[in-house]
Amino acid sequence: MRISKKVLTVAMASTLAISSLAINQASAEDQNKNEIRNVIFLIGDGMGPTYTTAYRAFKDDKSTPMMEDTAFDKYLVGMQSTYSHDKKESVTDSAAAATSMSSGIKTYNGAIAVDMEKQDVKTVLEQAKENGKSTGLVATSQINHATPAAFGAHDESRENYNQIADDYYDDMVNGKHKVDVILGGGTSYFDRKDRNITEEFQKDGYSYVTNREDMLKDDNEQILGLFAPKEIDKMIDRPKEQPSLKEMTNSALNRLNKNDKGFFLMVEGSQIDWAGHDNDVVAGMSEMQDFEQAFESAIEFAKKDKHTLVITTADHSTGGMTMGRDGDYKWDPADIKAAKKTPDFIAKEIAKGAPVEETLKKYIDLELTPEEVQSVKDAKEKSGDVLEIDNAIEKIFDLRTGTGWTTDGHTGEDVNVYAYGPGMDHFTGKIDNTDTAKEIFAILEKTKSAAKK
Amino acid sequence: MRISKKVLTVAMASTLAISSLAINQASAEDQNKNEIRNVIFLIGDGMGPTYTTAYRAFKDDKSTPMMEDTAFDKYLVGMQSTYSHDKKESVTDSAAAATSMSSGIKTYNGAIAVDMEKQDVKTVLEQAKENGKSTGLVATSQINHATPAAFGAHDESRENYNQIADDYYDDMVNGKHKVDVILGGGTSYFDRKDRNITEEFQKDGYSYVTNREDMLKDDNEQILGLFAPKEIDKMIDRPKEQPSLKEMTNSALNRLNKNDKGFFLMVEGSQIDWAGHDNDVVAGMSEMQDFEQAFESAIEFAKKDKHTLVITTADHSTGGMTMGRDGDYKWDPADIKAAKKTPDFIAKEIAKGAPVEETLKKYIDLELTPEEVQSVKDAKEKSGDVLEIDNAIEKIFDLRTGTGWTTDGHTGEDVNVYAYGPGMDHFTGKIDNTDTAKEIFAILEKTKSAAKK
Repeated sequence: MRISKKVLTVAMASTLAISSLAINQASAEDQNKNEIRNVIFLIGDGMGPTYTTAYRAFKDDKSTPMMEDTAFDKYLVGMQSTYSHDKKESVTDSAAAATSMSSGIKTYNGAIAVDMEKQDVKTVLEQAKENGKSTGLVATSQINHATPAAFGAHDESRENYNQIADDYYDDMVNGKHKVDVILGGGTSYFDRKDRNITEEFQKDGYSYVTNREDMLKDDNEQILGLFAPKEIDKMIDRPKEQPSLKEMTNSALNRLNKNDKGFFLMVEGSQIDWAGHDNDVVAGMSEMQDFEQAFESAIEFAKKDKHTLVITTADHSTGGMTMGRDGDYKWDPADIKAAKKTPDFIAKEIAKGAPVEETLKKYIDLELTPEEVQSVKDAKEKSGDVLEIDNAIEKIFDLRTGTGWTTDGHTGEDVNVYAYGPGMDHFTGKIDNTDTAKEIFAILEKTKSAAKK
Repeated sequence: MRISKKVLTVAMASTLAISSLAINQASAEDQNKNEIRNVIFLIGDGMGPTYTTAYRAFKDDKSTPMMEDTAFDKYLVGMQSTYSHDKKESVTDSAAAATSMSSGIKTYNGAIAVDMEKQDVKTVLEQAKENGKSTGLVATSQINHATPAAFGAHDESRENYNQIADDYYDDMVNGKHKVDVILGGGTSYFDRKDRNITEEFQKDGYSYVTNREDMLKDDNEQILGLFAPKEIDKMIDRPKEQPSLKEMTNSALNRLNKNDKGFFLMVEGSQIDWAGHDNDVVAGMSEMQDFEQAFESAIEFAKKDKHTLVITTADHSTGGMTMGRDGDYKWDPADIKAAKKTPDFIAKEIAKGAPVEETLKKYIDLELTPEEVQSVKDAKEKSGDVLEIDNAIEKIFDLRTGTGWTTDGHTGEDVNVYAYGPGMDHFTGKIDNTDTAKEIFAILEKTKSAAKK
């Protein structure tokens, strides 16, 4: 695409050129000329700047001199700050960050679309529904986990998983269920002893599916798809009965796109964060790949559709992951590719009794040193605990790749923002996570009044 | 500034909106309409994304609900990848990164404007000089350190400090010295037993100054200013005889601006990186502040001048610094402000014999716990080594603030890119560090042919 020479001349003459702020202001004014029907908001949970850089190195084609860009790279438009207003914790959790991105306010850690006084705050998903759009939530965690919850429910605590699941059914917007497409993990929260929400949804016309094949066969506009008791397995561990994030995203897009008034869809790559909490670089790259493929689907849809805005960002970073550690100027992801399963998957087999050396050999295509094998044997013998065995396997990858970690919690650095499609100029430069929601609300407002004209 | 509605309509109709790539392409074509006379390139050595975020929190006015932006924030336009082509080390050092940013090629760690075959490669500073512009190098390290060296010298090794200093005098472009304004540390490399380059420069009409006052009084267009045997002291340790990075930047701008053909100036905040190597968050924030003030001066100059492009970025990140550590969701910079001097400065006094408790009290405006004081006493008693005492003091700040570190070397994540002024659109989105030089070369080429017309 070429931009008119006239504009650049104007910009240059003023010497301000094209500042992101200026673009934001100018296009906010002109927004109602723009036909944005659909918004796809993808969140890589925990996907800090180190993850996106490391993933580029992980995917690099070593036969070419320069490192290839990831699918994300060419859509980078800026970064966002992520801090929460928690009274004790300044580094955000996923609930507070998702509330900021869904409602435009700062709140305390653990808050699900409620403010500092625990009062409900309207989310962009709810606004989209009010405007007559279809809505969807897709995640690889249980679908009532913090991030999707902050778009489709309200609760003073992210820990109230059952109440959040209830909200998805009970909360109505103009007499209709709030979320049309719900795909992720979490049967144990929806099909409970005290209440079976899966049946309630089905009575109201939703399809209910629990495996990949049934999801792909079904074409109902409203669907509840739950593919695991809690989270879906990580990409490289995933059984074929579970869909990928890309497949869930496509399945959601096919359904939501039937509404002439458009849709709002939130897609979360939930377990980049979980890999970070576990300080597991193998799982981290697995989940980055799952998320990238979903992102590519969203971009592909938007390119064809021409009326879809795609925004992609993270809620925070996790684990204090660094490329390089202990003085070495090296981060080499080659050995990560040798892992056919995550350390967690392998550790579970070993903890259940599988022999250490053979099991490592089965799932890791590397000549491990006797010391490396022994470190896993020691972990098994000392405690037999899955976590200890897991840590021992993770450490092999950390030392071979040069991956450092400082915490099993989150870290506070700004995260990347990617955008594509009409309205993308709303998200350029340095923004705050509350701006993300504010800009989506502004777009929903403009497109609503535009539709009325 | 408002952007013409026409352009935004064009962008929206095509649904691509304003992609950074598109802006780059379009404006590269239109560049010769643009009057860019001056380029100021500021490099925050080691200033990874965690440093810029942490600095925002450090500067935050706690009496307002939202965190204030730093001077950098509103000029964020993208990020750049930093990896080198070193055969053993994939994480770059400052020499290879600076060579990429000065010459547009990838090279090995340690290379000073030479390629993988150790052949000289032309730098943007040399091209600017060829075009008849004035040139300057400003840094808080010795001025013959890796980053400035890769703009003004050529050497197979960054360690050849004397040869690099010689290069600044000996290397000629069209019979003239390559660098007109040289301000930083490094008397010990320029005034040596075997050669006194300071005298040689003076014979050729350069002023030579060694303290702040003389620099401020002098208004010669060519100057060599060296304010310390090696590096200048860190901002909060700096004696009044040494200029700040801002003062050196302004002093350089005043001189360089006398050339009608414009100038190229590289300014390095050298010791953000050194703070990172030392895992010293107090020094890190000190040097970020020094760098921010220089950045503000550059922006101020560019705003008045209207023909100046300002580019600001980092060469890599250092130390694996994280906001948050050990599972705590907290990064609290309050106690950093209590430090009147860096831990290194305090440690040196203690190692020389100053009493531990009183010295800590003198320089750190905090009620330290008995355990904290004891940890420094232990370090003094055990080894008496400055480094050990320094580490003990740093640890107090790490634990109080929640700062984590994974290495005393560099880390590989992408770094932020800031730009302002005509031509800023060349640097938007995700770029590589080689693109930085390529785009400056392109701008120099365009403005050269434009000048000829």
